[in-house]
Amino acid sequence: MIQTLIKEILRKDAPVCVGLDPMLSYVPQAIVAKHLEEEGPGLQAAAAAIEEYNYAIIDAVCDLVPAVKPQIAMYEQFGLPGLAAFAKTCAYAREKGLVVIGDIKRGDIGSTSEAYALGHLGGVKVGEDVYEPFAEDFITVNPYLGSDGILPFIKVAKEKKKGMFVLVKTSNPSSGEFQDLVVDGKPLYEHVAQKVRAWGEEHMGEDYSYVGAVVGATYPEMAARIRKILPKNFILVPGYGAQGGTGKDLAPFFNEDGLGAVVNSSRGIICAYKQEAYSSYGEEHFAEAAREAAKAMIKDIAAGRAGGRNGR
Amino acid sequence: MIQTLIKEILRKDAPVCVGLDPMLSYVPQAIVAKHLEEEGPGLQAAAAAIEEYNYAIIDAVCDLVPAVKPQIAMYEQFGLPGLAAFAKTCAYAREKGLVVIGDIKRGDIGSTSEAYALGHLGGVKVGEDVYEPFAEDFITVNPYLGSDGILPFIKVAKEKKKGMFVLVKTSNPSSGEFQDLVVDGKPLYEHVAQKVRAWGEEHMGEDYSYVGAVVGATYPEMAARIRKILPKNFILVPGYGAQGGTGKDLAPFFNEDGLGAVVNSSRGIICAYKQEAYSSYGEEHFAEAAREAAKAMIKDIAAGRAGGRNGR
Repeated sequence: MIQTLIKEILRKDAPVCVGLDPMLSYVPQAIVAKHLEEEGPGLQAAAAAIEEYNYAIIDAVCDLVPAVKPQIAMYEQFGLPGLAAFAKTCAYAREKGLVVIGDIKRGDIGSTSEAYALGHLGGVKVGEDVYEPFAEDFITVNPYLGSDGILPFIKVAKEKKKGMFVLVKTSNPSSGEFQDLVVDGKPLYEHVAQKVRAWGEEHMGEDYSYVGAVVGATYPEMAARIRKILPKNFILVPGYGAQGGTGKDLAPFFNEDGLGAVVNSSRGIICAYKQEAYSSYGEEHFAEAAREAAKAMIKDIAAGRAGGRNGR
Repeated sequence: MIQTLIKEILRKDAPVCVGLDPMLSYVPQAIVAKHLEEEGPGLQAAAAAIEEYNYAIIDAVCDLVPAVKPQIAMYEQFGLPGLAAFAKTCAYAREKGLVVIGDIKRGDIGSTSEAYALGHLGGVKVGEDVYEPFAEDFITVNPYLGSDGILPFIKVAKEKKKGMFVLVKTSNPSSGEFQDLVVDGKPLYEHVAQKVRAWGEEHMGEDYSYVGAVVGATYPEMAARIRKILPKNFILVPGYGAQGGTGKDLAPFFNEDGLGAVVNSSRGIICAYKQEAYSSYGEEHFAEAAREAAKAMIKDIAAGRAGGRNGR
């Protein structure tokens, strides 16, 4: 799956991922109202509204970008109907040729991590048959529990040629509270990055590993150091756009080959119609606004990468 | 809810929690076979078998213990039917007067953590109404993202008088890879414990905070230091029994008042019928075996606490 991700990044010339993190307040009111009418009040109406919204955005961007990243929390909050919408969104995106990165940030130990891995990347056996409940291509995982928490994911991922991104340096303001604490002269996130490198060697593709790292767009200087620790691992980069990262900040996330990173934008794309720059589209044309925002992001990142290469 | 937990611990004289982590291989074969027959092959059969198994165990232990801790991964691996079984298990346990600790180990940032918090502790608004999809009393959360990842949970928990346990020192062998790294002369887990103390002050009950810590039974010396940092926070203690912790190891987890900890056993109780000590019960009487194992655990922990107090 890392080969597919690389191939699609090159083909579409866009190391970009669209975050499908639909707050219900992002979904145009008319769509929510229609589903409250059709399904009656309840979680089912919320889930149906989110599905319609997601499908339209997927249709609008699937020829432009290689990947989408649904954030499971935004679905889980709506209970079972919400999680059904998550599974359907993953399936619809795959049908449209997109790589699906499930932003699930799971992490536990032993058979518990393995259960998450089977549910999200592998398959679970019941009686004689195997079922694949969520079936993402990549997931995000939390490293706090150490190797016991990560290796079960790698075991399942290897069987399926799927992958994962381990949280290294997250994009949020307080990420430094623990991640930046200095151990033996180096911040904790560098220790985590070194483990990601070792874990990644367990599950290599051709040039890159199936095990990558999450590093926020908001911390480009740190990304430069992490990039050096992880020459053969992809970096999933949240925090572009709404959280403050811009294209010119992103050069340090990429390798000399122009690869090695996939930059995510959620609100900046899926909610573009609410921004001044795209307000002329109106709520009704939210998907076209998302498409224009995705194009602008791809251009911004290409400019940033070019600037980075020239500056070296 | 921390007051309810304390009240029930005192009333039942048992600082004990039963982990409802049903691997399908734990469920007696006859129950699995019956549901494969009734529901037909599929995830629904697995979920129904797990429900029947859980309900019988809850019935068997609900007068002995104050709390249960369902591990969501074991349900999530069976997709939507599995997650429905998780929600039903939580609801059934609450009906039986048990405090429900959802072992979900979620952790994200800002509105994303808030979405998890609403789905698991609070309620989510759709149209004019509010729904409570999972409705646990406590959850477990991961601290790696810092305060941005924890405060949204506390915000929702305060509104609902619910609580959480933050991972501090986990029970697994590799937990030290990051958690024991030394920062300014102190291991990382102590830095995390200090944050838990600060977070806990944001949401206090009478004597104890609604915000507690997870510290593995397998690390009693570390628990003694964490206990000092967190005099007013409950410690949720996994790793008793199957993972190696025993009653005499547990004294350091408790305060002088005999409170401050709740010890979890999963496999050791729910799968007691597979142990030699309880094999006479047979698969058919798995719930009675679980009841006897719970009694034995309560006795073992009481002896350990008494030993600890006398030794001081």
